[in-house]
Amino acid sequence: MFLQRLEILQNIVARAGLDAVALIPGADLRFVTGVDFHLLKRPFVALFPSQGEPVFVLPELDKLNLQAANPFPLYALGYTDTDGPDAAFAEAGRILDLGGKRVGVQGTRMRFFEAQYLVRHLPGIALVDADDALADLRMRKDAAAIESMRRAIAISEAALAGIVAGVRPGMTERAIANDLHIAMLRGGGGALPFDVTVLSGPNSALPHGVPGDRPIREGELLLFDYGTTVDGYASDITRTFVVGELTDPRLRDAYLAVLNANEAGRKTAGPGVPAQEVDRAARREIVRAGFGDYFIHRTGHGLGLDVHEGPYIREGNDRMLEPGNTFTVEPGVYLPGVGGVRIEDNVLITENGAETLTTFPRELQSIGR
Amino acid sequence: MFLQRLEILQNIVARAGLDAVALIPGADLRFVTGVDFHLLKRPFVALFPSQGEPVFVLPELDKLNLQAANPFPLYALGYTDTDGPDAAFAEAGRILDLGGKRVGVQGTRMRFFEAQYLVRHLPGIALVDADDALADLRMRKDAAAIESMRRAIAISEAALAGIVAGVRPGMTERAIANDLHIAMLRGGGGALPFDVTVLSGPNSALPHGVPGDRPIREGELLLFDYGTTVDGYASDITRTFVVGELTDPRLRDAYLAVLNANEAGRKTAGPGVPAQEVDRAARREIVRAGFGDYFIHRTGHGLGLDVHEGPYIREGNDRMLEPGNTFTVEPGVYLPGVGGVRIEDNVLITENGAETLTTFPRELQSIGR
Repeated sequence: MFLQRLEILQNIVARAGLDAVALIPGADLRFVTGVDFHLLKRPFVALFPSQGEPVFVLPELDKLNLQAANPFPLYALGYTDTDGPDAAFAEAGRILDLGGKRVGVQGTRMRFFEAQYLVRHLPGIALVDADDALADLRMRKDAAAIESMRRAIAISEAALAGIVAGVRPGMTERAIANDLHIAMLRGGGGALPFDVTVLSGPNSALPHGVPGDRPIREGELLLFDYGTTVDGYASDITRTFVVGELTDPRLRDAYLAVLNANEAGRKTAGPGVPAQEVDRAARREIVRAGFGDYFIHRTGHGLGLDVHEGPYIREGNDRMLEPGNTFTVEPGVYLPGVGGVRIEDNVLITENGAETLTTFPRELQSIGR
Repeated sequence: MFLQRLEILQNIVARAGLDAVALIPGADLRFVTGVDFHLLKRPFVALFPSQGEPVFVLPELDKLNLQAANPFPLYALGYTDTDGPDAAFAEAGRILDLGGKRVGVQGTRMRFFEAQYLVRHLPGIALVDADDALADLRMRKDAAAIESMRRAIAISEAALAGIVAGVRPGMTERAIANDLHIAMLRGGGGALPFDVTVLSGPNSALPHGVPGDRPIREGELLLFDYGTTVDGYASDITRTFVVGELTDPRLRDAYLAVLNANEAGRKTAGPGVPAQEVDRAARREIVRAGFGDYFIHRTGHGLGLDVHEGPYIREGNDRMLEPGNTFTVEPGVYLPGVGGVRIEDNVLITENGAETLTTFPRELQSIGR
């Protein structure tokens, strides 16, 4: 399997007009090697030429894991903390001869110091951002990946159902988030793809808010944005509830607008549809309801071994959706100081249309009594 | 408090001969602003000139959090997903006029694409790795930070005690790791600083191993490397147990060597002692016992809002330890295919010496019966 994935990667390198790509630990390298290496402060760079054996410069500690997995023939140039990585990078340069060559890097992942090691020890190398080309590596999920995501979603939804049944006014955002996290671990979920977010009342108007010690109150919104992983594949779900009765008519209208936008986005998705059309369909509903200025982010992002990956569901992305693409549809309306609503589902593009993998009810539910 | 931290940062910038530093979300920015921003795939760069107001280029979503915290006067240049970040970076360039200036970046954190945005929109800017200078920002922990670390350690140790009491042969590494994680969450621990590691038998010889479905067996080693956070401050603890009776005499010898190395390292630590002396003291014990080739990493690393930060306890680091430094002492011996032993404590440098913050017993304990 990993020999085949190596070939997919090398084809991407060649098609992009690159001589090689340099990957550091993360979803791409996990996909290609099957090993979930740690991203730490020791440099670890795997160089994949468009043809021939890859060259890994890595800490001796990680070399042991790589050799145990043995995904395909490669050069493993390990270094110890005492020796440092310079000699290993220089050796990589001798093996690959990348002087004057174009080497793609993961623009949103490779760090300054890793790039510096490459530039210093592989003289004449030209680094270019290869994120767009590399997105093709993992964007069409296979059956095993989709099955893992289904399980991650099932664990997440069962955990949420249990938690909301027990929510009562006076509990804090932080305590509820903690309980939801524990429920997912108990249900078999793995490492969190991101910290569980529980935001109440005016805090729910902060799309990047952090749960605090605020006790939840009757009549307020309660927003959950959370997920888990199975075999590294993530779920990413948002639901917004009301504690007791929602009295603010603007928030009722906002909820309805977001619900309509979520449905419009999911209905628009399908093979051959440009990603931005999903964003437009969702946004149109929110604009029509008069909340256009309060939907301040894209409609969604791809989901897989990374919780944010291609395809990005945003204006300007005219790439056509394809079977096997998995992504979020998550329109939201945020009224500063008042409250925010977001409804986020996980969608799979199929041969004939789109399947919404998430099943948790979307209509406004009253909880806490 | 944050005005004062801003001043500390700006002094570091000036002392390092830089005109500014560029920080992205992470421990440094959290320390300076008090806000735990997410590191995502939208660029977020905070530019701190050596004098005057900082300039933040950031997603609108994060601007809301920044304005809610309001740590000190600054320019917040937000951008939406629809507009993209280019105009905001260009505006930052007009405000700061960094052409021909030296700007420090976090070498082990800033990513390729953020650096590219800076180079593209702030013409003539020269980026340099400022990790060494920036280490001074958070290396001397204040009383509040030390108290948070004490609580993180107490939660971790109580959780481990509970878990090892219940370990039985046949349980899997993964299930034990999951239970330990849940126990820390129940005890009040926050987000994990790194995934809980539980490795049994020959797997314990992989310092970067990942827990799997291997059932633990009588007579084997069982290694835990784990921690939690309180207010973002991490604990990082390793203990190695034996399930039942340890029969392999080499592993008994290895355990004793690591125990002696751990003690020697901790005893050597103190104010005015070069960091590398702690490494040397620990390593000497392991070499003396004949296991020198099997201790393949440095003796430790600083610990705080980042789980790996300065001071690094390794050969070549002649920086003197100072009161308020917190770091790990974690010698290990790894016999490939057989088993590994590591004993990791968290140490605080005081005015007169060093305090070991971790208290869990270090002598070899038999568990699982």
